[in-house]
Amino acid sequence: MNAVAGGDATGGGGQASGVWGTAGPGNPAAGPVMKYFAPTARIRRTPFTEGVEAAGVSVYTSYNHMLLPAAFAGLVEDYRHLKRAVQIWDVACERQVEVAGPDAARLMQMLTPRDLSRATPGRCLYVPVTDERGRMLNDPVALKLAEDRWWISIADSDLLYWVKGVAFGLGLEVEVSEPDVSPLAVQGPRADALMARVFGEEVTQLRFFRYGWFEFEGHPLVIARSGYSKQGGFEIYVTPGDIGMDLWRALMEAGDDLEVRAGGPNLIERIEGGLLSYGADMTLANTPHECGLGQYCDGAHLPGVIGGAAILAEAERGPARQIRAIEIACSALPPLEAPWPLMDGGQRVGQVTSAAFSPDHGVGVAIGMVERTHWAPGTELVVETHGPALPATVRASFWS
Amino acid sequence: MNAVAGGDATGGGGQASGVWGTAGPGNPAAGPVMKYFAPTARIRRTPFTEGVEAAGVSVYTSYNHMLLPAAFAGLVEDYRHLKRAVQIWDVACERQVEVAGPDAARLMQMLTPRDLSRATPGRCLYVPVTDERGRMLNDPVALKLAEDRWWISIADSDLLYWVKGVAFGLGLEVEVSEPDVSPLAVQGPRADALMARVFGEEVTQLRFFRYGWFEFEGHPLVIARSGYSKQGGFEIYVTPGDIGMDLWRALMEAGDDLEVRAGGPNLIERIEGGLLSYGADMTLANTPHECGLGQYCDGAHLPGVIGGAAILAEAERGPARQIRAIEIACSALPPLEAPWPLMDGGQRVGQVTSAAFSPDHGVGVAIGMVERTHWAPGTELVVETHGPALPATVRASFWS
Repeated sequence: MNAVAGGDATGGGGQASGVWGTAGPGNPAAGPVMKYFAPTARIRRTPFTEGVEAAGVSVYTSYNHMLLPAAFAGLVEDYRHLKRAVQIWDVACERQVEVAGPDAARLMQMLTPRDLSRATPGRCLYVPVTDERGRMLNDPVALKLAEDRWWISIADSDLLYWVKGVAFGLGLEVEVSEPDVSPLAVQGPRADALMARVFGEEVTQLRFFRYGWFEFEGHPLVIARSGYSKQGGFEIYVTPGDIGMDLWRALMEAGDDLEVRAGGPNLIERIEGGLLSYGADMTLANTPHECGLGQYCDGAHLPGVIGGAAILAEAERGPARQIRAIEIACSALPPLEAPWPLMDGGQRVGQVTSAAFSPDHGVGVAIGMVERTHWAPGTELVVETHGPALPATVRASFWS
Repeated sequence: MNAVAGGDATGGGGQASGVWGTAGPGNPAAGPVMKYFAPTARIRRTPFTEGVEAAGVSVYTSYNHMLLPAAFAGLVEDYRHLKRAVQIWDVACERQVEVAGPDAARLMQMLTPRDLSRATPGRCLYVPVTDERGRMLNDPVALKLAEDRWWISIADSDLLYWVKGVAFGLGLEVEVSEPDVSPLAVQGPRADALMARVFGEEVTQLRFFRYGWFEFEGHPLVIARSGYSKQGGFEIYVTPGDIGMDLWRALMEAGDDLEVRAGGPNLIERIEGGLLSYGADMTLANTPHECGLGQYCDGAHLPGVIGGAAILAEAERGPARQIRAIEIACSALPPLEAPWPLMDGGQRVGQVTSAAFSPDHGVGVAIGMVERTHWAPGTELVVETHGPALPATVRASFWS
């Protein structure tokens, strides 16, 4: 079994070598042996898993205790298709934390340094959520459904537990729960064309990070112009889950001539776009300013926010390190399974936390956390991959 | 790639068919196509991953945002070896929540319905942790290191977020953190022999669920007689992480003639033993009484426990459903990826949440949640696997 998997992952050639990373025949940057993903009820199937498996998912990851498809035909082939056509993504793992009740708005503003006074129904807001020390607990998207009812669409940590704990401890009058809501994303340049066929032309009028209510099989659904790619598209907050496969099939059928395919967040494309991954690019060790999220940390309300004092103090002195785009000179990269040190001579000055070889840019694209002394654009460093050490340059911005 | 994986998982024959489940040549219960596990920094490597991979891990799962090995030579071969010899398990994913400070003991007793007045340094305590509605947030093991310093060794949910949130909301004087502590388990009938060689005879004097302090390379380590199997053994709370591989190698070298191997929690063996898995066998939807944990819910302190009132109320009226051992009549089972309904005629009366074919018992062994009307030992039901429907019987107890 191992031998079989090893042959696939490290470049035995043929179709198999392309499923993950850039490993290919004779490629010295070939990665570690790929492992199988254990079947278990503990990592939940989604309302769309049936469609995902019928579409031939080949690589999974787990995210918020749910299955998240990571590759179908292969990381590179999926990437090219995403940039050219349109894909349906099972992102049910973006679970919602619903905060409802008389104290909902008050609690929401305590949870994030972002000023929510401009939040109105119809807007999506990217909101850092910090602990009492001003450290990142999650970087979700908040949707105000009504003054007393909000959804927090979460990244990969049990934010439900934090919000419930705080609400309990403070004795707030709110219900905090995980509702039966499973996002399905439609991403790619042909997303507007496909969505119009299923939900009507009106859906294409949505502006970026705005949402509206649209109907499917008699159920009102939140649809937002958003998603974890830079190719444009929508996220449909599907509820209840048992209409999931009907919607999946409706989109697949309507998009046949648009070359619609099943897909998922694509490692290469999201790095090119500078889309951060909580748990990889930032953790509970980091502050919003370190994550380049200072723009979401202003306002007179900050002293009342959990962790607000620490965030204000850091804003004054400036962060000691910050997330940067990193370009790696290479013709292939092994898969990154743990942070790769960024070195200046013998000195460790940061780390790369997401990396992949970009076919479109012909370089390694990466996200890293770099010390203030070395974060200026153009700074030349060395990245110690688990394979070869490679030249790396700090960039001023991401690729798209 | 898919075709290759499919051939392995659904019984192409040879060594490959044995890696997961009981699928074999000509077996109609063959399971779904196995998928690969995506490499990512978001699901962390442990201090022992280097050893795990050198030992030929073939199947991974993720647990508390970390890699957890699920199979090496294969589920059945690993199972037979575990019952016969001794294995080293990378269970670093059993992360610790450290609660330290003047209010630590007070907070700990608020977190669990279990009476902690008998907790003393040297004891491990299995403690249900419930939310304000008395619903299960996690089922960890608590270690009192001192009156003002505790570890909570957690199952698969971010209990850190709950404990931090409650402590913040209540304004308690405690520090709640995840320390650099990574459990390594030594499990199997030869565990005492192996541990004595590395830590001295004294370690074998530990009684079940007691811990002591032992030294490795000058570092004092907590070692408990505990672990997620019924074959006997120990858990070593390894800190700091950078001594992890030295300890791994020391155990492997000392156990060569004992046939020591790398292993991990084994699906078949843990079901036979009735060891529950949070997120599968119980979730936030369940109460301690439903999980058969009523024995940990007594004492005059209950009204002061978070969720205590709900727990008391349920103790009075009795739970509506409860976890039971379920025997399935079959000669093979497909892998369980989502709960399987338990039916009485056309009526759904429960669900199976963990299941595997047991070579030693010659039946399907399973854990299920069954309605009160149907939970009596001997009740005959039908379990709807994703493959065939099979006869299932409620048992009075687990197999070992």
